[in-house]
Formats: sequence, structure tokens, C-alpha cells
Amino acid sequence: MSDTGASGEFALIDWIRRQPAPRPTGSWTRLGIGDDCAILGFGPAAASGPPRELLVTTDMLMDGRHFHLDRDGPEAVGYKAMGVNLSDIAAMAGVARAAVVAVALPRRRATEVARGLHTGLRALADRHGVELVGGDTNAWDGPLVIAVTVLGEATARGAVKRSGARPGDAVLVTGPLGGSLHSGRHLRPEPRIDEALLLHRAATIHAMIDLSDGLSSDLSHILEESGGLGAVLEPGAIPVHDDARQLAPGDPLAALGHSLDDGEDFELCLTVSPEDAERLCAPGALPRVYRIGEITRAPGLFLRDADGGLRPLEPRGFDHLRGDAGE
Amino acid sequence: MSDTGASGEFALIDWIRRQPAPRPTGSWTRLGIGDDCAILGFGPAAASGPPRELLVTTDMLMDGRHFHLDRDGPEAVGYKAMGVNLSDIAAMAGVARAAVVAVALPRRRATEVARGLHTGLRALADRHGVELVGGDTNAWDGPLVIAVTVLGEATARGAVKRSGARPGDAVLVTGPLGGSLHSGRHLRPEPRIDEALLLHRAATIHAMIDLSDGLSSDLSHILEESGGLGAVLEPGAIPVHDDARQLAPGDPLAALGHSLDDGEDFELCLTVSPEDAERLCAPGALPRVYRIGEITRAPGLFLRDADGGLRPLEPRGFDHLRGDAGE
Repeated sequence: MSDTGASGEFALIDWIRRQPAPRPTGSWTRLGIGDDCAILGFGPAAASGPPRELLVTTDMLMDGRHFHLDRDGPEAVGYKAMGVNLSDIAAMAGVARAAVVAVALPRRRATEVARGLHTGLRALADRHGVELVGGDTNAWDGPLVIAVTVLGEATARGAVKRSGARPGDAVLVTGPLGGSLHSGRHLRPEPRIDEALLLHRAATIHAMIDLSDGLSSDLSHILEESGGLGAVLEPGAIPVHDDARQLAPGDPLAALGHSLDDGEDFELCLTVSPEDAERLCAPGALPRVYRIGEITRAPGLFLRDADGGLRPLEPRGFDHLRGDAGE
Repeated sequence: MSDTGASGEFALIDWIRRQPAPRPTGSWTRLGIGDDCAILGFGPAAASGPPRELLVTTDMLMDGRHFHLDRDGPEAVGYKAMGVNLSDIAAMAGVARAAVVAVALPRRRATEVARGLHTGLRALADRHGVELVGGDTNAWDGPLVIAVTVLGEATARGAVKRSGARPGDAVLVTGPLGGSLHSGRHLRPEPRIDEALLLHRAATIHAMIDLSDGLSSDLSHILEESGGLGAVLEPGAIPVHDDARQLAPGDPLAALGHSLDDGEDFELCLTVSPEDAERLCAPGALPRVYRIGEITRAPGLFLRDADGGLRPLEPRGFDHLRGDAGE
């Protein structure tokens, strides 16, 4: 991706994925680095029924980067730390089950912060049937850091990967996008676990990702992992969040830009056949989804202009190593 | 424990364990917070054979607390981060299978540090058949933080917990103790996974823990979790590491103190019946173990004096919230 550079996050992840790795006897790995979750096959498949798939995901949040402890308070931090991980389980159409939490607490107020974190973590975990089963508690003179790892399982329909998009697929998103960081909405993610399960039951989801870095960047991951496909997005169909509109009053194009690039919406982006898209977008169908474009065989991500022409759309999402969106 | 105080790490963990938690339908949890690993039952048990148990553990290391990046280099940090987690799998007599890694990298040298970490992580992971299946990569202006979560499975004999010690049990350790932090040995832990599996096959291990905080502190966890038992240790039987002797030249009592309290040895402490202890300690038996004392029904941890009297032994291990050993 052009905006990350040779020293960016994606170059590093590519380097890690290129390192030769021995495959141990009895390997559990069905899908390793590079999707929202790893997929593991735990032990031999059951004698009858489909093989069970274990999902694993981890996310780390740091004070000053993903939250501001003094402004947001520890409870909001715990809530967000659980939410971003549950969103990764949702992106595989999985069910979340258990979590472990490791923290580096600011020493001056370690116990108070730890209790607040726990309250926030539990608020969201309880709602999704996730048990906190372990952790590691440390204090230091540095800022608060929290790392959550969530375990879940795929349903009998199997986990949905980023890599299954097909030319002609419709591109859908589960909610309005943009302005989340500015409004503070990024602190209260609503992981779309139930929505993903309902959609996966009603249709065959070919590919899915959660919108954490921004639609332009996250959809590019689907295109790349699906073998170098492309997509054309219809600007008028993209659901622009009120938060994005408030960032650019009277400037619909700028608001659209926020919807395409801002990130931390934690909605889902998925691709399905045109027939499935018809059904999922029928009036009154739940959960509500928005059909925003189409997957193409020709590579590249484009926005359709008012005159029908195609304008290239640069992925400008968040690079976690650079710490800025785009160039 | 008297040295941690109401605001210490163990008080916090107690608070977390006391919080009411709903048990969701289809709960995986067989053992939650409070042991070296959580034990999860993933899905329904197989039709035949013993139920499979999934082990999960997480540990976070921070620059300036558990290592010094400038002095030790990123490869040693990666090695240690993997080692401390594998040691927790060893403590359950489990087999390690997969790991996810979350990092907060110092921005100035993010890619170089990430590659060094990866090399160190993989060195130990490859040796133990552990696959790196996912992670989260961030950069910031703060010091390096790394959180590793390891998944494993118990053998058909089941996972060994801290809670199974019985009065009359012999207390064993797998290697010499003390001086690890001072000598730098703490950076190169040798997780005793193979040793634990061999011991668990040769004998019935009642209780086990890895020695991360210090023998006096870690053995106290076994006593507490086993229902408030006690133990008497024989000073002459405790294997004092050369590193501990070098810390206290010509002062065997001070060297013994280091063996009892220093921590970060990453050996195992286990309890077995006296009959099993005889066998495990027979000349030439492998792996080498040291019989250092006995579990008692009367609570409290004691050292036997030269005249046969009992001297109380205060747990002086590391408190991760306070950041110091003992008072």
C-alpha cells in the first residue's frame, strides 16, 4: 500500500509472514498471521459433525495513542480494549468465549485504574457471554498499556476470512462511517457479533473485515488477500455518519472523505453474491446493511464519479507504526 | 500475604476473583483466574477418550521493569517474553502449541526492534513446537512493551493445578535457585516443558507452579490454593544456584536467602506423594529433581533450624504492583 512505505506496519507484517517457519507435528494452525483472527484446529476433529475451529485475536491499547486515561477514565479504556477484540471475532462471524488481559498500570494509581478497567472490560464481556479467565498485572512509571486476547469459535458454517471475495460480489457495510475519533464514539465500540452471526446464517459471506483502520484501507486488505481484486464504490451509497458530517459542515465531499478514511468505526465490511445482497438489503431485512459497491476482477480501488468515470481511491487508513492516516 | 498489603498485586487479584461473574451458557471455563494458566474445555468432549483441555496464559514485559532494551537488545527480550509464557504452560504439565504477540514499539527504531523481537520469540517457539499465529503491532513514544499469550493443551493425564497439594507430600524443585536477576540468567529462561511432561508420566504430580516470583512466594500460592496447608523446608536440601553464591561470597545463609526469595528462576516447584518422591529422586533418575521439604496439615511456611526447630519463612517474592521484593 503506497502510504505505508517500506518501514510501515504492513511492510513489517509482510516481513514476518515471509520468515520461514517450521510446521510442527500436530500443528493447530489453519490460518496464521494476516486476518482479523487466527484460526486453530484444537486437537482432532470430532468423530461426527464439522471440524471445530478456535479463533484467537489480540489487541494492545496505549495511553496517548488509542485513548487518554486522564480524559476518558479507566472504565472507558477497559470497554474499548474488550470491544476492539470482540470486533475481530465478529469479523470472522465467530462466537466469543473467553479473554485474558495483561496490563501495565501507572504505579501512582494502579489499584484504582485496575478496578476501573475491570468494570469496563466486564460490562462488554458479560453482554457477549465472554469470561475473563486470566491475566497479568504489572505496575510501572510509564503510561497505561492494556493487551487483551480473546478466544472464540467459528460456527458450524466455518469462519469467514478476508480472502474469499469474488469478482461481481456486492460490497456491504453494517453501519454509518466516519468521525468516530473526533466524537469519542471510538471509545464505545459496539462489536457486531450478533449481526455477523445473523448475516452468516442468512447468506454466504465470501469475505469480511472489521473497519478499524478505515474503509479505504480495510477494504484494500480484502482485495489484496483475495488475490489482487479491485472494487468500485458508489459515493452516494456510502452511509456517512453524523459525526463525519459535523466534522465538515456543509461540505458533503469532505464528510465522505471521513467516511472512507477515518477508521475506528468497528462496523463490518463484507462481500456477498449479488443475489445474497438483494436479499440482505430487502426493505425491513435485519440487521440493516448498506450496499456500497462491487468487487471487480481488475485490481484497484475506485470511486465512481458523477459522470460515471472511475476515480482511484488511495487507502489512507491508519498506519500503527507511523501513527498517522495517509501521507 | 503480609508483604503485599491491601493495595498490592495479590489483593487486587483477590478483588477481581471476588467480583460476581455470570456463567454464560456453554461456558468453556474449567479453571479461571489464579493459576499459571486458565483451563478451558473447548466445545463438547470427544465421544471417546478423555476430555481435551485447552491451556491459556498471558504475560507482559515492560522496558525498565523486566528488561532493559538498550542493554539487553530486542532479541533477548523476545526470547524472555516467550520463555516466561512457556514456563506457565510447563507449570500445568501441558504442551504449548500457538502464540499471539502484541507490542508497543519505540517509534524511533520500531522496525529494527520488531525484527529482533521476532527472532528471539521464534528461537524459543521453534524449539518447543509453538507457532506464532497472530499479533498486534503498534509504535509510540513510550518504552517497549510486549505481551505474549500462549495456547496449549493438557495431556491425557490432565492439567496439574496449584491446588492439589496434600499433607505428607514431598516438595520438589527442578533446578538450582537464586541470583537470576543479577547474573542476567533471567533473560534466558529454559521452560521446563519436557521435564514436566516426563515427571507427569513417571509420577502423579499433585500440585505445581513455576518459580517466577521466588520460592517462598510461589510455594505459598500452592499452600493457599490447596486449602491453607503448610510446608517445612530443609535448608541443606535447597539447591543454591552458583549465581546466588556469587552474590554472597562466603555467606551461605545469605546465598540461601537468594535461593528462597529472588525469583525469575523459571524452574518448577511440585508436590508428590513420598513414594513418588523416592522414585523421582532415585540415583540416575531423569529429569533431575531436588527434594526440599514436606507439606504439612498445619498452615505456615517454615525452615527447619540446625537444632530441629522451625523458623517461620516470610514470603518475600516479587510484588508486580509494588515493584519490590518483600517489605
